[in-house]
Amino acid sequence: MAWLEAVYRVRASPHEIEAIALAIALEQSVEVPLAAVKDVGVRENIVARVQGIRALEEREFEVRLALAEQTMGGDPAQTLNMLFGNSSMHTHVELIDAELPGDLIEHCAGPRFGIRGLREKLKVESRPMTCAALKPQGLPTAALARLCEQFARGGVDVIKDDHGLADQTYSPFAERARACQTAVAAAQRATGRASFYVPNLIGAPKTLYEQARIARDEGVEIVMVAPALVGLPVFQELVAEHLKGIAVLAHPAWAGAARIAPAFLMGKLFRLYGADAVIYPHYMGRFAYSRTQCRDIADASRRPWGGVREALPVPAGGMVVERVGELVRFYGREVMLLIGGSLLVADDVEARTREFVRAVEDADAALEVDG
Amino acid sequence: MAWLEAVYRVRASPHEIEAIALAIALEQSVEVPLAAVKDVGVRENIVARVQGIRALEEREFEVRLALAEQTMGGDPAQTLNMLFGNSSMHTHVELIDAELPGDLIEHCAGPRFGIRGLREKLKVESRPMTCAALKPQGLPTAALARLCEQFARGGVDVIKDDHGLADQTYSPFAERARACQTAVAAAQRATGRASFYVPNLIGAPKTLYEQARIARDEGVEIVMVAPALVGLPVFQELVAEHLKGIAVLAHPAWAGAARIAPAFLMGKLFRLYGADAVIYPHYMGRFAYSRTQCRDIADASRRPWGGVREALPVPAGGMVVERVGELVRFYGREVMLLIGGSLLVADDVEARTREFVRAVEDADAALEVDG
Repeated sequence: MAWLEAVYRVRASPHEIEAIALAIALEQSVEVPLAAVKDVGVRENIVARVQGIRALEEREFEVRLALAEQTMGGDPAQTLNMLFGNSSMHTHVELIDAELPGDLIEHCAGPRFGIRGLREKLKVESRPMTCAALKPQGLPTAALARLCEQFARGGVDVIKDDHGLADQTYSPFAERARACQTAVAAAQRATGRASFYVPNLIGAPKTLYEQARIARDEGVEIVMVAPALVGLPVFQELVAEHLKGIAVLAHPAWAGAARIAPAFLMGKLFRLYGADAVIYPHYMGRFAYSRTQCRDIADASRRPWGGVREALPVPAGGMVVERVGELVRFYGREVMLLIGGSLLVADDVEARTREFVRAVEDADAALEVDG
Repeated sequence: MAWLEAVYRVRASPHEIEAIALAIALEQSVEVPLAAVKDVGVRENIVARVQGIRALEEREFEVRLALAEQTMGGDPAQTLNMLFGNSSMHTHVELIDAELPGDLIEHCAGPRFGIRGLREKLKVESRPMTCAALKPQGLPTAALARLCEQFARGGVDVIKDDHGLADQTYSPFAERARACQTAVAAAQRATGRASFYVPNLIGAPKTLYEQARIARDEGVEIVMVAPALVGLPVFQELVAEHLKGIAVLAHPAWAGAARIAPAFLMGKLFRLYGADAVIYPHYMGRFAYSRTQCRDIADASRRPWGGVREALPVPAGGMVVERVGELVRFYGREVMLLIGGSLLVADDVEARTREFVRAVEDADAALEVDG
């Protein structure tokens, strides 16, 4: 019988922690009192086991459980269920990390492009990559397309929809995808340099799959999806079956709603379920993520992991051009820097974009010197 | 322009709260600094507005925002995105409640059966309904079917899969659905009384839709789904397009991972997206939900809401037969009581189930006398 390890952070008093750890083990496997488990095979092969308890702080413990792989059956939804289904409702329990079952890894396979594939697509050999965001929503399609062209002329690698852009009347998905693809093509004819437009796919499965079809028909090569919002199992199916040849940028919307360590959710689960690049809030911006959390997310997304390709970390959320040097020193080269509002407040968006691109080149050159 | 109100609970100091409320309004609409919103139409019709700020506790405030309905475009995923997409990553912000856009209500329509439709299906005129759970997982299909028959002979109305039952090798979905349907039919021939077997649908969309087909082919009339786990937008599509004529019991797995008021998520969103009945952890059991939270969930699921049918509250999570009277006094008749482990620990499951059913009848009769 194969077992995998899941790690939880649990708030409890020292005299309660053992009983609570046992309760979590039951909750995440058989969901009945042990007395109701009359079958010996189930007791031995299915009931989760407490592997270790370690004090972290005064009333905070790390609990390591062994969960039976066969309860998960290689299914992306059922795996989440067994890792944290009912315990998600226990406010004293957080899911910190877990090994993932081999048949799930086989089923999901992770990024189809990964960092190397993205570099080939974007034709960026070694420097940090750059990304800008089309917003605010509410602008008509033509205005978004104009903005897209300005970013492209400014030399940014990737231009993504704001995650708030869906299929609203003011900029419907199909119309927007076509106009923005046309805009990046026009800029490329002028500059000789390719930028990639990344539409945001959002909706229930039928809508998502239809948007994937439209994107492909328009020649789109990268799309954005928020896995926590559409549902991780749907995300996995979308990537595997409807985005062949198209790279995937994961957006963290709704993800923070989870009481799950961001490095595990965004760095590991998003990656395993198929994200080639993962956007997350960097600590210098307007979100409260810590320096350590950001480091952990980047590490989890880039760490060697058997046959699973690396995903590119994309720190974002209030980044400004003036701090690009700092960002590159923190993350190194295997990163995509996403700057939104700090480009849009400028009167001349194209010139400001050029500053951003140059700042990244300078920061890259400085690494060369330091290294 | 139509606006809807969303309510957040925000931890902040009194001198910061105004700035923070404004920041949430920007985050949940245009996601740029106001200075970057150069278009007058966007400023007037898209940027969310702070409607009110009210102190709740010393460093805790209720913030009411007006969000533009047109940003949501009637889509079930995009609505979640605009209510809490990025703010989900702000640990000082909780989503407490929201009006929902008219075109979303039209699109989702809510329960297709509701409490009245469930009563007709189950042929239970006015007493509280009863539910037992098939577990522990790990038992072979034949053992689960035997258990199913015992519960049915004991007279329980609904017998649901444990939410941990998926498509594992020890009790594959199709085999289990057939065996359990056969078991309830056999019990009905013996007792003349119908019980309903409720399989758990879980997986990515293709798997879910295939399980829905199998369930229908086996004559299943009620299924269980965990909306937060499979993704709310998928849940909505599953109900609307793949479960015609089949009632839906929502399970809360993964839902507690959200920093969203349970009454809003489970009582209102699960209901709107199509749950006929909503399982949630009752405060007497092994979860930390408060009496007030449970009352709020039940109220939200049963409250009159235009054309949206009522959903049946199903308190669960460590309920015992001995406290049925208390439960019925707390919730009244429009409820389904779900008891799991407390039936399974008994040596004679059928006799224990009969006790449960009688306890509910007695509690119902006692209401008669009191009322």
